[in-house]
Amino acid sequence: MDITQFSQINPPQRMLMGPGPVNADPRVLRAMSSQLVGQYDPAMTQYMNEVMALYRGVFCTSNRWTMLIDGTSRAGIEAILVSAIRPGDKVLVPVFGRFGHLLCEIARRCRADVHTIEVPWGEVFTPDQIESAIKAIRPRMLLTVQGDTSTTMLQPLAELGEICRRYDVLFYTDATASIGGNELKTDEWGVDAVSAGMQKCLGGPSGTSPITLSARMEAEIRRRKCVEEGIRTSAHRKGDDEIIYSNYFDLGMVMDYWGPERLNHHTEATSALYGARECARLILQEGLNKGIARHKLHGDALLKGIQAMGLETFGDLNHKMNNVLAVVIPTGVDGEQVRSLMLNDFAIEIGTSFGPLHGKVWRIGSMGYNARKDCVMATLSALESVLNYLKFRSVQGAAMQAAWDHYHNQCVA
Amino acid sequence: MDITQFSQINPPQRMLMGPGPVNADPRVLRAMSSQLVGQYDPAMTQYMNEVMALYRGVFCTSNRWTMLIDGTSRAGIEAILVSAIRPGDKVLVPVFGRFGHLLCEIARRCRADVHTIEVPWGEVFTPDQIESAIKAIRPRMLLTVQGDTSTTMLQPLAELGEICRRYDVLFYTDATASIGGNELKTDEWGVDAVSAGMQKCLGGPSGTSPITLSARMEAEIRRRKCVEEGIRTSAHRKGDDEIIYSNYFDLGMVMDYWGPERLNHHTEATSALYGARECARLILQEGLNKGIARHKLHGDALLKGIQAMGLETFGDLNHKMNNVLAVVIPTGVDGEQVRSLMLNDFAIEIGTSFGPLHGKVWRIGSMGYNARKDCVMATLSALESVLNYLKFRSVQGAAMQAAWDHYHNQCVA
Repeated sequence: MDITQFSQINPPQRMLMGPGPVNADPRVLRAMSSQLVGQYDPAMTQYMNEVMALYRGVFCTSNRWTMLIDGTSRAGIEAILVSAIRPGDKVLVPVFGRFGHLLCEIARRCRADVHTIEVPWGEVFTPDQIESAIKAIRPRMLLTVQGDTSTTMLQPLAELGEICRRYDVLFYTDATASIGGNELKTDEWGVDAVSAGMQKCLGGPSGTSPITLSARMEAEIRRRKCVEEGIRTSAHRKGDDEIIYSNYFDLGMVMDYWGPERLNHHTEATSALYGARECARLILQEGLNKGIARHKLHGDALLKGIQAMGLETFGDLNHKMNNVLAVVIPTGVDGEQVRSLMLNDFAIEIGTSFGPLHGKVWRIGSMGYNARKDCVMATLSALESVLNYLKFRSVQGAAMQAAWDHYHNQCVA
Repeated sequence: MDITQFSQINPPQRMLMGPGPVNADPRVLRAMSSQLVGQYDPAMTQYMNEVMALYRGVFCTSNRWTMLIDGTSRAGIEAILVSAIRPGDKVLVPVFGRFGHLLCEIARRCRADVHTIEVPWGEVFTPDQIESAIKAIRPRMLLTVQGDTSTTMLQPLAELGEICRRYDVLFYTDATASIGGNELKTDEWGVDAVSAGMQKCLGGPSGTSPITLSARMEAEIRRRKCVEEGIRTSAHRKGDDEIIYSNYFDLGMVMDYWGPERLNHHTEATSALYGARECARLILQEGLNKGIARHKLHGDALLKGIQAMGLETFGDLNHKMNNVLAVVIPTGVDGEQVRSLMLNDFAIEIGTSFGPLHGKVWRIGSMGYNARKDCVMATLSALESVLNYLKFRSVQGAAMQAAWDHYHNQCVA
């Protein structure tokens, strides 16, 4: 192998305006470039405790067990599902996009008895629809996606916790695509477990997954407690339920690692933890609600601009996430050619789509560090230029004017 | 919450001379601070392909499927085990330390029929011992640890591949603690699957796990192929065997993501990938064998110094890893007090131990970026100072002189 052909990392400059990952906040990358300390160094365990405190703020919770799973966002999903679901457990998954299917699949791998209800892509469920399904199925767990990035829709969760309590159902949601850019009130809404990812509104790189667990969820998981053979002592009790299918995702062990016993499990991914801590710190410094309002401001400006360009949007706009918009690819326009021109000639990435929407919509995001006026304006301007070049007719400058008008109206309001 | 109490990341300066994690090479941290690109950006897919090529060099293999699992080193272990082991499969684990127990535990969670052989901590197995057990048990897989960091021992693997072929056994090894600092010839030794971690001799932060799979291992895993419901098309075939217990660790899916189909699975942890790429590039720039020789040089210098200080070592020195040494805590000395003084007054971390060795030995490492003369000399000097302060008698300067002598002899040799 000729090693000289591999140059140092030097990625091209991109403005990432797809459904995520987006550009990391440079302050997060700087935090991640800090040197390591040992796994049990007092500095490290303090950072771990601070991460727990900071993410309680991000999740709007007082849950003790608020911590990181070392892996991408679906590592957080799987850790919760495989730790909580016992083989044969009934689970209910309201599916309104690809990530609902993902929850079903992971639950099936946990040998759950999976029940689904579905709405067409672009819609969400009413609380009544979910309550009816719970009444009919009587599941042990309700597995929801808050924001399904495949459709850009945001499932309202506020009323579901109370329903779940009434039927003694454990309530989980995946907030990867939504958290930080849309309201999520873990405790107030009675959510028993939430998982998230860094690469959307939190403004960091993919690679660690913040989760939070209610006391109820903790108790269910603790019943399956296991301490590793290599470090088990007679003081450690074995759990009541069958051992879970994973060591890496055994949340009982992960809690013992983050808790005062600091029982060795994995070697914490220190750089990722530094990054996650900085993401939370930035969000709470800005103020969680102010950050959500910022996502709404720029998301709405993008929407107005797209509409003024004469483009159609996809899905129920009343239930869209603040941070991402699905734009219908106009007839006669090659969606992939547009994405290539945007990327190669303007260094702006917009997203393609999965499944039934593949080839039908672009997904344009404005989130995290990129929920900024200059990102929205540059994207609209480049998109108008590219579409005009490809003979799609629009009124010159109308998109940018609509966005400017929106910013102006919001500022004087 | 008062956010002002959370300052920016600013870890104390430490020289990490334990069994890992060690200090990351600053060039790796710089690579990791590069800005992100999109998941399917041509720049990103090229980096992924380069990572595959570079780690073929590190693993001494031509295996096509040489890639990263997004998680810590045990994520790589679990991905291979859960993808390859079918419920009820017989596996054989030669246990010579804590990480052998870990392999047993993960295999049990995969519902394997786990058989073990054991030697006392501080020893390793002969090929005959392993062949006899294979003959008696006839397992489908042999699960080994190359370097068990709990005992510092290095299990010889060179003859095991041929034995496994003869009995039609799949041969896996965990090389987390050994790779980069000790010889590992995946193809020449006939190893079917290897997993590793970044935080030891590879010189990076924990958080991603390089793995490699032989064609034989690939074929076994492909029989369990599954394509996610949300993105499955009629062109995708279902596997023959029962679906594995994990989505995140389903190596069939991970291969489809790293392969030409680029089928979406997780969102690759880009910063961790940048770091892992730089680690491999640095190792191959130095030359894999030169790097291993460097680990041996500094490991031996440390050993000579420790012996000249009048300290006993633990385990069979003929089978010790180059990169870590277990030192018996002398009678009358409080091992934790020594570690505290080393850390607080000299900013040097040395390691404690697990299980039967807990409180009996320190583990001192010199690996990755810290396999350097100045690290070895500073550690010996600080340890002599601390022990002298605690009234342990040694000849002033003898440890450093022995190390200097070793360096001198090696240079003139």
